[in-house]
Amino acid sequence: KVIWTVLVTMLGYASSLPVGEDALCTAGELAKYRIIFTGKWSQTAFPKQYPLYRPPAQWSSLLGVTHSSDYSMWKKNEYASNGVRDFAEKGEAWALMKEIEEAGEKIQSVHGIFSAPAISSGTGQTSTELEVHPRHPLVSFVVRIVPSPDWFVGIDSLNLCEGDHWMDEESVDLFPYDAGTDSGFTFSSPNFATIPQDTVTEITCSSPSHPANSFYYPKLKILPPIAQVTMVKIKKSQLGLSAPFINLPAKSNEIIDTVS
Amino acid sequence: KVIWTVLVTMLGYASSLPVGEDALCTAGELAKYRIIFTGKWSQTAFPKQYPLYRPPAQWSSLLGVTHSSDYSMWKKNEYASNGVRDFAEKGEAWALMKEIEEAGEKIQSVHGIFSAPAISSGTGQTSTELEVHPRHPLVSFVVRIVPSPDWFVGIDSLNLCEGDHWMDEESVDLFPYDAGTDSGFTFSSPNFATIPQDTVTEITCSSPSHPANSFYYPKLKILPPIAQVTMVKIKKSQLGLSAPFINLPAKSNEIIDTVS
Repeated sequence: KVIWTVLVTMLGYASSLPVGEDALCTAGELAKYRIIFTGKWSQTAFPKQYPLYRPPAQWSSLLGVTHSSDYSMWKKNEYASNGVRDFAEKGEAWALMKEIEEAGEKIQSVHGIFSAPAISSGTGQTSTELEVHPRHPLVSFVVRIVPSPDWFVGIDSLNLCEGDHWMDEESVDLFPYDAGTDSGFTFSSPNFATIPQDTVTEITCSSPSHPANSFYYPKLKILPPIAQVTMVKIKKSQLGLSAPFINLPAKSNEIIDTVS
Repeated sequence: KVIWTVLVTMLGYASSLPVGEDALCTAGELAKYRIIFTGKWSQTAFPKQYPLYRPPAQWSSLLGVTHSSDYSMWKKNEYASNGVRDFAEKGEAWALMKEIEEAGEKIQSVHGIFSAPAISSGTGQTSTELEVHPRHPLVSFVVRIVPSPDWFVGIDSLNLCEGDHWMDEESVDLFPYDAGTDSGFTFSSPNFATIPQDTVTEITCSSPSHPANSFYYPKLKILPPIAQVTMVKIKKSQLGLSAPFINLPAKSNEIIDTVS
């Protein structure tokens, strides 16, 4: 009986071990996904200080990576890397691409990098293709909110593998984050470095708790999603064209129009 | 003797036939390239009206496609498509991506689409990976000059295939083009549609021939290249990491510093 108890305890412990998510992926081969990013940053949904001029509300290029749990592009409540800081503050991707390259070379934790074109308005869409690997099933990306001090949206280490197979489709609502590197309070705040650097924090309708903050809406319980991302697995039969599209609407804001 | 003359004439004619470039590619398989775009738009090289504020000189996302001679993204002295107009005027990529998708579906003239992140200054670099196919050996891309009315740099249908093999490396100097859709004369001209639309034209130091033009340098014979692009074939051994980098410098402007 003692032995049984020990065994059960061990099994219980083993199943709750914080193992890397990728260790559990037994899918047989690579999978390709189309990733579609939809900006929902409209003046209707976010009327406060909505940027109309020089520059109007828009989104930077999307920069992403597929990786194992040994790599992290960014994480809530942790310090942003220099690459993420450059990207969140200026939309400058080079340092972040270099960091990803080094992680790929040194610890083999990166499968691939992907990017999608910028969107020239707050609502609109962009899209590209990504590839995941059983040892690198996680997806992370960042898109800078323009204009802003150092604000971005993104995903941190979303696992597209479910045991022995790849997920067909996954959609995630996105909310704004502060990279913790610039102390500006509003979309158009002048550049003002945060020293010492703060951690990455989510911006909510009540935090930072100051009426001057661009996302401060004291009457709301939660902000509406400022963007959304959908990843759709590309079926083998669609691979004739190496970058297949999945019925993209004619105009990037068609989906938006029906929502707002 | 008459027969010989006819034969020689026929052979001469055949070798100068305007056959599609892709028809001549007999390389055995796909090839992958790293494409590195380098902005050379410095205040030193282009002092006139160099944009310093709101926004400072910078480059949009790069949007490109690998294709056969049945598709053309843009062409000098021809009218820009709606997609190229949206991209050149606003950096909005969606309509152009949609056009490429349709060309891929309808006439199988497209192999793949690729994009690289924007560059937040006039000098700097960005990079991504592309794949060519023996039936789709041509590369085209566009990058918008920001700020500008509808000016861009790019490549139109560069053939990476040389007979039975893929080129190892190719570098091209880039010069500014006017998409012919906006009549602005200077980097920061207000939006002013060209009706009827004009064709795509190269902007030189003497054309448009007007002192107000931002690239008008009457003392120069030719403009210095405003950007450069290099495509380097990725060797099979480098394919462990799906998006390999080829010794990217730590800072994107390191190469620039040594040049200017």
